[in-house]
Amino acid sequence: MPTYALLVEYDGSAFRGWQRQVSGLSIQQVLEEAAAFLERGRVGSTVAGRTDAGVHASGQVVALELAAPFPLEKLADALNFHLRPHPVAVLRVAPAPRDWSPRFSGLLRVYRYSILNRAAPPVLAAGRVWHVPQPLDADAMAKAARALIGRHDFSSFRAAGCQAKSALRTLDCLNVNRSGEMIEITAKARSFLYHQVRNMVGSLKLVGEGRWEPKRIAAVLGAADRRLAGPTAPAAGLCLIGVRYACDPFADSPERCEEMRT
Amino acid sequence: MPTYALLVEYDGSAFRGWQRQVSGLSIQQVLEEAAAFLERGRVGSTVAGRTDAGVHASGQVVALELAAPFPLEKLADALNFHLRPHPVAVLRVAPAPRDWSPRFSGLLRVYRYSILNRAAPPVLAAGRVWHVPQPLDADAMAKAARALIGRHDFSSFRAAGCQAKSALRTLDCLNVNRSGEMIEITAKARSFLYHQVRNMVGSLKLVGEGRWEPKRIAAVLGAADRRLAGPTAPAAGLCLIGVRYACDPFADSPERCEEMRT
Repeated sequence: MPTYALLVEYDGSAFRGWQRQVSGLSIQQVLEEAAAFLERGRVGSTVAGRTDAGVHASGQVVALELAAPFPLEKLADALNFHLRPHPVAVLRVAPAPRDWSPRFSGLLRVYRYSILNRAAPPVLAAGRVWHVPQPLDADAMAKAARALIGRHDFSSFRAAGCQAKSALRTLDCLNVNRSGEMIEITAKARSFLYHQVRNMVGSLKLVGEGRWEPKRIAAVLGAADRRLAGPTAPAAGLCLIGVRYACDPFADSPERCEEMRT
Repeated sequence: MPTYALLVEYDGSAFRGWQRQVSGLSIQQVLEEAAAFLERGRVGSTVAGRTDAGVHASGQVVALELAAPFPLEKLADALNFHLRPHPVAVLRVAPAPRDWSPRFSGLLRVYRYSILNRAAPPVLAAGRVWHVPQPLDADAMAKAARALIGRHDFSSFRAAGCQAKSALRTLDCLNVNRSGEMIEITAKARSFLYHQVRNMVGSLKLVGEGRWEPKRIAAVLGAADRRLAGPTAPAAGLCLIGVRYACDPFADSPERCEEMRT
């Protein structure tokens, strides 16, 4: 069955998360239903990052399996037509490389967490940020974040429902940058534990408020005990920015990589 | 009567524009109604830029006149409380400087126009951009824009309903920058004619598409004839970023300027 790699953007506010749920609308459901308009047969999809309810994506990667081939140059427009009026759009489409999985072939996932740090409520960024009215010291947060970089047991920042066998993960980047009222935290890793980014942000915010010393982050990490970390930051501030692969399915010149050919 | 300078952010989608209208809700109305909760007397406001229906602001400046003084440090929170659930927020508050008018004291108004230039419809930027699916040459647009910089008769880019006596204006900046799929056009001038920014953008888009040579912008400007310019760009892409004053009412140290004291 022909499989296509899709680059997908969505506003997570309206959904119960990526994955199909009996309890409500998921991004997976609206995407597969849009694809079912194109091909009457069975449609299936797998995804790079199974984002939670309320989490956004500007660069989610999906493998979409159709019952029969569809003209590649028309696929994005056709899917976008049937996705309306849902806040989901297919940005790019490519043939899925051979033996490629959006999830298991991913070398690096990039998430961005946005905090709007001002007294006034968000307006133009509403639904895309965590609104923290009390002043945060972004430099202290950046300093504390450095303790989390590297290969560690992240049990302290793992949600109770996490199904991963091991809590060992390698965090390649955790940058904290302030630009005016906006604090952006960029996290990069091959994979993350359930709620890991939001739990790290929840603790860094306590450092930013001055309620925790920056060095406390290292102590919490070392204790490997979820009860010692801060609360989970809200979903609305989180966005999956992109996923890196050894062979990027969306590279403009498919010739540059042998495995890009299906 | 005590007058306060307000820095205001709003999402213009929900409103008929800044100015009170009998036909529907305006930002002026919801702001004055929020202020009326604080002071039972008469409330009045004047504004730096009377934005149109659908136009946003991240740095609008308003002079709000109350019937009686209100504690300065509580004014923004109190207004924001009563502004809910409207997408309008007061970011900063200061005593209005003596003889200061948000409109007539403005030295420079900064507007940004955003074009999302990709085939897929906008999702995370929905309602904040003009979606142009066909590829635009931002370099050609930037080159063409240079012809508009300076002091000119802008009759070609002035809407029919414009009430200004003269179409002479000095355009200090008209930058076109592409960042990925987003093209941002920044326009700076002491004042603009009615629809001037949106009309300039509408013509620059024709240059970007290759339907107009860049040099045609100079010819259209020189002809001083609205019928020769392109169509008006949609309101949703436009945002009033800020207004500069000789004495910034929101400067952190009011001591630095004599006129800041009321």
